[in-house]
Amino acid sequence: MLTLYFAPGTCALASHIALAEAGADYRAERIDFKREQQKSPGYLALNPKARVPALVTPCGVLTETPALLQYIAQLHPAARLAPLDDPFALAEFNAFNSYLCSTVHVAHAHRMRGYRWADEPEAQEAMKRKVPQSVGECFQLIEAQLLRGPWVLGEAYSASDGYLFTLASWMEADGVDPIRFPKVAEHRRRMAERPAVRRALEEEKAPAG
Amino acid sequence: MLTLYFAPGTCALASHIALAEAGADYRAERIDFKREQQKSPGYLALNPKARVPALVTPCGVLTETPALLQYIAQLHPAARLAPLDDPFALAEFNAFNSYLCSTVHVAHAHRMRGYRWADEPEAQEAMKRKVPQSVGECFQLIEAQLLRGPWVLGEAYSASDGYLFTLASWMEADGVDPIRFPKVAEHRRRMAERPAVRRALEEEKAPAG
Repeated sequence: MLTLYFAPGTCALASHIALAEAGADYRAERIDFKREQQKSPGYLALNPKARVPALVTPCGVLTETPALLQYIAQLHPAARLAPLDDPFALAEFNAFNSYLCSTVHVAHAHRMRGYRWADEPEAQEAMKRKVPQSVGECFQLIEAQLLRGPWVLGEAYSASDGYLFTLASWMEADGVDPIRFPKVAEHRRRMAERPAVRRALEEEKAPAG
Repeated sequence: MLTLYFAPGTCALASHIALAEAGADYRAERIDFKREQQKSPGYLALNPKARVPALVTPCGVLTETPALLQYIAQLHPAARLAPLDDPFALAEFNAFNSYLCSTVHVAHAHRMRGYRWADEPEAQEAMKRKVPQSVGECFQLIEAQLLRGPWVLGEAYSASDGYLFTLASWMEADGVDPIRFPKVAEHRRRMAERPAVRRALEEEKAPAG
């Protein structure tokens, strides 16, 4: 049994989709960011980073989306969520996930979480103003180069697709017009129809337990 | 034959150390950031992200340090640079690398590359002022929780150690006093003595070809 700690609207959705796609034996446990539950002693004991996702496994707790995606894929090889038998293709999978994690997500985070990198409200406002451009440039690269089509890695669906779907769903709120990126928009439409994506989204809407 | 594109003083050193530790058949090719060679048409054709590292392999080009580290480890299993046979331990390896990439490196980047996230010089100055605190908090977590000792993953050396060494070497310039983090400081001392680390540093000092 795996337990995924998530908050709705966060990047934890990528791991949630991967668990659902894998047919994993899991439960999803909501962390209430409005009540700052991620900073509670109980959660900090689990994940001292005070973030989501965190995945509780029989071996211990794991964090960081790229690490979770490959782990979920390795634990459920029949679901073929990563090209596990080809080191180069697996590196491409990890490179895509790392780009989303360290560049796309980071660009996005400057809209809501600028306090991480500057104290002054004016500086945080300046960061917010730049988000449409910086996030837009990321999706320009994804549209033109990284998203091979129909899936991120080409013909084979992988856990990278759920991660792209998650971050692409923030585009409108970041002030980026989805019409500029037709391949990404079409990918989002196909993803939204997948039963595993619907299931993960439903589970994240359910009232906190 | 692998070709690593690097610039001195960047995170490419982590992959460079891994190649040297692996005994890989590689050459290191310098990109001159002062001449903006990373934006030259030739380099952009190789790596449209205009960053380092990029690793040219017989199968194609790879980017993103966490992806490179696992790939180099998989290509040279005898060097034991990652716990390849244990999915949970491998996920811990990737989680550590992902934290360095998406949190520690990003905190550091606000000192020199604030223009990525805000246009106004005042905002960029505000970001610079926060770096000692934000980078310091990252090393606090590494010191207290993540660096198990003697190596990142415990008893076994891994490619994560070269990555930590690379980012920890920026600490002084980031205004973080290394005396606060004795475990990290001791790790840096031991790393600096390793022949592979010396070799990588020597190769990065050599005059551009």
